[in-house]
Amino acid sequence: MIIEKIKSEGLAHLSYLIGDGNEAAVIDPRRDCAVYVEMAASRGLRITHIFETHRNEDLISGAPALAELTGAPVHHGPNPAQPIRYAETVREGDCFGFGGLTLTVLETPGHTDDHVAYVIGDRDFDEGPVGVFTGDALFVGDVGRTDFYPDRAEEVAGALFDSLRKILALGDQAIIYPAHGAGSVCGAGMASREFSTVGHERLNNPRLRIGDRDAFIAAKVAENHYYPPYFRRMERLNAEGGPHLARPLRPAPVALDALDDTSARVVDVRSVPAFAGTHWSGSLCLPESMISSFAGWFLDAGEDLMLVAEDMDQAADAMTHLARIGFDRVVGAYSGMMPAAAGGKPLDSMSFVDAETVASRLQEDRNDWTLLDVRSVDELAEKRIDGAHHIYVGHLADQVGDLEPERNYTVMCASGARATVAAAWLRANGIPGVDVFLGSMGAWEAQGYPVS
Amino acid sequence: MIIEKIKSEGLAHLSYLIGDGNEAAVIDPRRDCAVYVEMAASRGLRITHIFETHRNEDLISGAPALAELTGAPVHHGPNPAQPIRYAETVREGDCFGFGGLTLTVLETPGHTDDHVAYVIGDRDFDEGPVGVFTGDALFVGDVGRTDFYPDRAEEVAGALFDSLRKILALGDQAIIYPAHGAGSVCGAGMASREFSTVGHERLNNPRLRIGDRDAFIAAKVAENHYYPPYFRRMERLNAEGGPHLARPLRPAPVALDALDDTSARVVDVRSVPAFAGTHWSGSLCLPESMISSFAGWFLDAGEDLMLVAEDMDQAADAMTHLARIGFDRVVGAYSGMMPAAAGGKPLDSMSFVDAETVASRLQEDRNDWTLLDVRSVDELAEKRIDGAHHIYVGHLADQVGDLEPERNYTVMCASGARATVAAAWLRANGIPGVDVFLGSMGAWEAQGYPVS
Amino acid sequence: MIIEKIKSEGLAHLSYLIGDGNEAAVIDPRRDCAVYVEMAASRGLRITHIFETHRNEDLISGAPALAELTGAPVHHGPNPAQPIRYAETVREGDCFGFGGLTLTVLETPGHTDDHVAYVIGDRDFDEGPVGVFTGDALFVGDVGRTDFYPDRAEEVAGALFDSLRKILALGDQAIIYPAHGAGSVCGAGMASREFSTVGHERLNNPRLRIGDRDAFIAAKVAENHYYPPYFRRMERLNAEGGPHLARPLRPAPVALDALDDTSARVVDVRSVPAFAGTHWSGSLCLPESMISSFAGWFLDAGEDLMLVAEDMDQAADAMTHLARIGFDRVVGAYSGMMPAAAGGKPLDSMSFVDAETVASRLQEDRNDWTLLDVRSVDELAEKRIDGAHHIYVGHLADQVGDLEPERNYTVMCASGARATVAAAWLRANGIPGVDVFLGSMGAWEAQGYPVS
Amino acid sequence: MIIEKIKSEGLAHLSYLIGDGNEAAVIDPRRDCAVYVEMAASRGLRITHIFETHRNEDLISGAPALAELTGAPVHHGPNPAQPIRYAETVREGDCFGFGGLTLTVLETPGHTDDHVAYVIGDRDFDEGPVGVFTGDALFVGDVGRTDFYPDRAEEVAGALFDSLRKILALGDQAIIYPAHGAGSVCGAGMASREFSTVGHERLNNPRLRIGDRDAFIAAKVAENHYYPPYFRRMERLNAEGGPHLARPLRPAPVALDALDDTSARVVDVRSVPAFAGTHWSGSLCLPESMISSFAGWFLDAGEDLMLVAEDMDQAADAMTHLARIGFDRVVGAYSGMMPAAAGGKPLDSMSFVDAETVASRLQEDRNDWTLLDVRSVDELAEKRIDGAHHIYVGHLADQVGDLEPERNYTVMCASGARATVAAAWLRANGIPGVDVFLGSMGAWEAQGYPVS
Repeated sequence: MIIEKIKSEGLAHLSYLIGDGNEAAVIDPRRDCAVYVEMAASRGLRITHIFETHRNEDLISGAPALAELTGAPVHHGPNPAQPIRYAETVREGDCFGFGGLTLTVLETPGHTDDHVAYVIGDRDFDEGPVGVFTGDALFVGDVGRTDFYPDRAEEVAGALFDSLRKILALGDQAIIYPAHGAGSVCGAGMASREFSTVGHERLNNPRLRIGDRDAFIAAKVAENHYYPPYFRRMERLNAEGGPHLARPLRPAPVALDALDDTSARVVDVRSVPAFAGTHWSGSLCLPESMISSFAGWFLDAGEDLMLVAEDMDQAADAMTHLARIGFDRVVGAYSGMMPAAAGGKPLDSMSFVDAETVASRLQEDRNDWTLLDVRSVDELAEKRIDGAHHIYVGHLADQVGDLEPERNYTVMCASGARATVAAAWLRANGIPGVDVFLGSMGAWEAQGYPVS
Repeated sequence: MIIEKIKSEGLAHLSYLIGDGNEAAVIDPRRDCAVYVEMAASRGLRITHIFETHRNEDLISGAPALAELTGAPVHHGPNPAQPIRYAETVREGDCFGFGGLTLTVLETPGHTDDHVAYVIGDRDFDEGPVGVFTGDALFVGDVGRTDFYPDRAEEVAGALFDSLRKILALGDQAIIYPAHGAGSVCGAGMASREFSTVGHERLNNPRLRIGDRDAFIAAKVAENHYYPPYFRRMERLNAEGGPHLARPLRPAPVALDALDDTSARVVDVRSVPAFAGTHWSGSLCLPESMISSFAGWFLDAGEDLMLVAEDMDQAADAMTHLARIGFDRVVGAYSGMMPAAAGGKPLDSMSFVDAETVASRLQEDRNDWTLLDVRSVDELAEKRIDGAHHIYVGHLADQVGDLEPERNYTVMCASGARATVAAAWLRANGIPGVDVFLGSMGAWEAQGYPVS
Repeated sequence: MIIEKIKSEGLAHLSYLIGDGNEAAVIDPRRDCAVYVEMAASRGLRITHIFETHRNEDLISGAPALAELTGAPVHHGPNPAQPIRYAETVREGDCFGFGGLTLTVLETPGHTDDHVAYVIGDRDFDEGPVGVFTGDALFVGDVGRTDFYPDRAEEVAGALFDSLRKILALGDQAIIYPAHGAGSVCGAGMASREFSTVGHERLNNPRLRIGDRDAFIAAKVAENHYYPPYFRRMERLNAEGGPHLARPLRPAPVALDALDDTSARVVDVRSVPAFAGTHWSGSLCLPESMISSFAGWFLDAGEDLMLVAEDMDQAADAMTHLARIGFDRVVGAYSGMMPAAAGGKPLDSMSFVDAETVASRLQEDRNDWTLLDVRSVDELAEKRIDGAHHIYVGHLADQVGDLEPERNYTVMCASGARATVAAAWLRANGIPGVDVFLGSMGAWEAQGYPVS
Repeated sequence: MIIEKIKSEGLAHLSYLIGDGNEAAVIDPRRDCAVYVEMAASRGLRITHIFETHRNEDLISGAPALAELTGAPVHHGPNPAQPIRYAETVREGDCFGFGGLTLTVLETPGHTDDHVAYVIGDRDFDEGPVGVFTGDALFVGDVGRTDFYPDRAEEVAGALFDSLRKILALGDQAIIYPAHGAGSVCGAGMASREFSTVGHERLNNPRLRIGDRDAFIAAKVAENHYYPPYFRRMERLNAEGGPHLARPLRPAPVALDALDDTSARVVDVRSVPAFAGTHWSGSLCLPESMISSFAGWFLDAGEDLMLVAEDMDQAADAMTHLARIGFDRVVGAYSGMMPAAAGGKPLDSMSFVDAETVASRLQEDRNDWTLLDVRSVDELAEKRIDGAHHIYVGHLADQVGDLEPERNYTVMCASGARATVAAAWLRANGIPGVDVFLGSMGAWEAQGYPVS
């Protein structure tokens, strides 16, 4: 009787293989879904059921592809915004068995209308559930966001409150298995810890500890969440069932000349310092570890992408991250910045400036220069540098019109990472005079400069 | 903040890597301990502490070897039967931190006098423990055995009762991380499920549900446990610190002639059917999946062992299983039964007989033949075939004197697996006239024959 | 500049990835062709060309599947028996470049009419070829078989002689890269060594050393080769392009009851001794290492197959071997003979008899018993046991009518392996009274019995 | 009968596992030698002999460690500069067998006095050798360097000429297996191709094609080779037998504060652009792919090293490269430049300048600035930029006294990679005013600037 967690880094998405005897189920499979078949087979398990807790908006579900690979049916909760074409509808109390294991449906709307949890029982030890797959209803340290239906904000927050009470009623002893861990855009307050129980959350989870329904609704409605443009496409594909992806992705390596000739958008997936050191002129900076969070703001699903990576393994990882969120048109990958340099190719650098420089520029009160803070509004509310102008990194495309092409900008965030992503995008979109505050807010405070 | 479970099949031994930030701890490391260093390093963690829940008797602890590899100190509970030379003593309430994680010592004697549990806390979510490493005090579905101090049987059972109350007091929300899973000789009633909580155990664990101290003691004292002779050696080595084992084991492949010439004991680690089909005359049958449970009854730590395997990977796995329980003298391995046959080597077969044959032999009431049941006394108590003589497989060496060399024996167990192990040992020890009841009790009942 | 050999065990099929700079080619890809994409990508290479040396008859070419995966064109020699629908025709002297590497076509008919070799050149060191992909024209220690056009036997043998002269003319320094190694049905005299040169073959290869064209033809025409029935299907599929296979195969694990209910043919892929020990009644014996050579004689591409294996990894390997030769209908796999036994399932054993028993049976001149030798005619010609009846293992299906259902047979080969395969097939096809001579000819001679 | 090549990237060192039947030999094992045991065991081979072609000066031999792991004796040629304590001496004609394979000693002094080749024979196909392990005598496209005995330069070059004639006499058909491939410091003219034969080298190798002994000697004596200071230590350790290394290396991850406090030398093993982007102030730049070639010039075997890497896998690879050349004191590794930045740590950048900037600086004829070319003398002889000052990158430590601490330097090489290594070293050694010519000679020429 096993539960195996499969974590997709970047998205911090958690899916699960659960099995006993010869049978297994997969909960919330990701798009590159051969992994479940491999894991099941190596444990002597046949995947007989696929379960979704809700229609995902931040990634492409692998359920239809896995169904095709295995022949197993997909189960999904009732009342989806659009019909889920590839799934059968499950309702409160429906029960499925795998060897000695049972999964029982608990309707838990709120995050989405169709959200369900799956309660885990052990037929041989059946006093109280062993655990529960909580999807995006309950995380370790946080609960799901409820901003997807803006005109029904209070209603759905209330629905989540009620759903959480149902989960609490399962008992303190139930282990929780959520669909996301820390780092996900689906909840800001998640613990880095990836194991917890209903009881431990009841005692510690700040949102769960709000016992009053109205207070809970008020707290949820006051939250700030970002909604990248690719979410809309995910929602559609996760109803229709997107193009399948059953085997590992590997971009085609291209020679230096091919990079020269490409009409594709060049996306550099190396680390921030490597991009700053030197990069293909005009390329975007989307380090492999940040792609999942930021590609959805900057890329267009209809455009060809050419990757620049340290090596082909990094390029393959980046291509996989992109595929999980629906960017499939990777036409090749190049690695090797020094050969490109020696080939006399158009390379660029991104200048880093330090806290002292930023402080002195601010003091000079220069009228050709602005400190541009690209952090989130929550971060901004916590502390800010006086004199900085704010645009959230994800909103640059919408608000670039507010910037002046002849003006100089120093971009900052918390460390310099998102700032470099933003600065590269600005350079590629008509704002050439940008540099990056290395260390950003972290360095600013470490050097003892004041924040407000 | 991660907890990774490392399972050693066969022994069903569970050890854990726990870490946060840059630091990690290992709980109850096994002897082949490079795995922890690899896992930690690949997660960016440095092992700073090693914890033992108790002095193991069924395997060699990897704590001293891991301490040497990492420089980390070993921590062990108070009052061991012999001083633990390689460890520092921890006591109730001692607390250790790893990033945001804490481990707090809970003294839990009973299984052994030195037994402690380690309670897991999260500094950022500190209402009630997140979990607890329960060692051999509390398993999923069972509690630890208390037969290691025969003259203090009731005292130590009572101590375990008190220790379990302390664990229950941690709260229903605490996840339990025991040192063994189903299949271990350390508890017969364990669930096949490897995840549970204090709360779920409180509701379901048959032993935990005995609320009366005296009733608990009576139940524990009435249990039957086997004590293989190698346990005594493990106990000594786990106080002194046995020879280290830091790298993967691989037996030297030997040619057919070397097998011919060997003075080592030949141990066949292939499957039961393969052994029955044909095997080196005089070899023991210890299939790779059964070595951990039965080698300790039949092998002598001082003798050389020559393995016969399907292939060298199976031989390597078998060698590792043997090393974990202290049998280090594997001098080589041979694979290739058909070449041996074609070389005219001394091969033998083990005959399987079916239920019908056994039934008719029993009915004939033959006086040159006995049905020999090698199951455990607990299995025997549950059901038996009338007319069968019983010797537990592990007690054959002690009781072989009760058998008659000229007599014929059909050996049975539950399926035929242990029976084949037993039959091979009997043939190699002066009882040539043995065959095996294929399917044994299972087939007997499936065919509708009566049990009592 | 790399050449990587990819060996498919069982078929002893050799394919190659060759590359330089950013480009690579694959020579004679096998059906499960994702391996080439992985290998190329991890070396920073993009597969731009696929080459076939000839239309294979013993396996399904992966060229069309690999072409689909990579977009690379497939190249094939002229004059195929049927048009190769997925390939472009190459002719003598056509030259292709990959970085500093070149491949030049050398028409080398004989084994098949469409056979070509590909000569490897290095642009920077271009005096004389570096090597040559010799396909099935020239092996290490042997040359290709020429029995595929029975009515043109002498003509094609002569064509091969001429082709080999062209290869010899490349110079002693050229390394040879053949399409098969020892163990293939495509040449009986191959060396176990897998590296050689034109020069070393010129000096040592028994067939190449025949300098006279007529003597060579006479020698080739006198050879004995077997032609399993699946070859005809391979030939057709390798012209049309068979169904693609781009991802790893994993059979679905089935529970014991499913095995009970299956209407599929049960194929046991465990080792010969394991099959002999106990097996599902009526199952065929095709050990994983022998599947490639013998499945094509006994299985029908249109029937469902249920595997019995030691574990699911072995089942997966067996399924892959089957797919390479076009048997795709594996509906599941079961592992676990002892649970089946304990479930009272219909299991059987295969008795092994030794040389002494066979000798005494022969001496008795029993008229209800025959020693049945299933070795090849070449082995038979070398030595035989007087009194044995001969049917080649592959011809049992055709000649089973010559056997008597009530008669007892002891089956022999060289070691007992093929004999067990044959005995299992006989039992499943109306000849119940069979046992197997363990060790067979090898044991017979080792015991000092006479051969003629 | 197999020959497997094990390549150590960076050093471009080639070692070999050769085996047949049950026995294997290893030729020129590297220090991290568990790989040979694993490879042999998985192929069913037992390593029975270890052979060295010569006493290496560029890496630590793994022969003594492998001997300890396997019990196999080490064989080494006669006349070493110092006695090889761990080896037995072999002489011309000594022959060793492994199954059907033979290895025969051929004394081939020149590169070193003790150099031998091992000729590969196949007992079943014994007309002419199949191949030869040529060590550092003959490479693909080049021959060994002969500068290790400066006062006997002509004598040893002549000895190599004679040795190469002996190798040529083996016949064109013999495959060569050298101890180095392209990228090694042991021969500048090696082909990127890693497969060749005596015949192909006879036709193409520029040095082998010099048929006149005196002309050969003159050519060899005129060659330029660099001799890093660590060579002397390797020579001593390879006579004595250095400290063994039998298991994989993994540096201990350290937290940011530990990096702050370290007294160890900080070595940044990330890529050149990443280092340029931002790095720990005062750290050396030794990208993982360049460590093998350059660490030996800059590091001291007696100092502690703290690595900075992209991730712990890269750190582990770097640690392994360092160990192969005898730098064992890696005390930890840090990854995470952006957290360090956010922590306000002392970070630095390295400015890249382009060809246009360099050209204009040269034209200005500035007297506070010098273009510093760190390429080899052979590269310099081929083409140079007028006005550049030359110091070979490896000679900076010796010649830094010629540079002026107040002066500005732009460092160049062929691409900018070695220039960055050099610039980082200069900054850490009292020359703060350095930047790097990105693209260097490659970019210079691509932009059409003149070279002389």
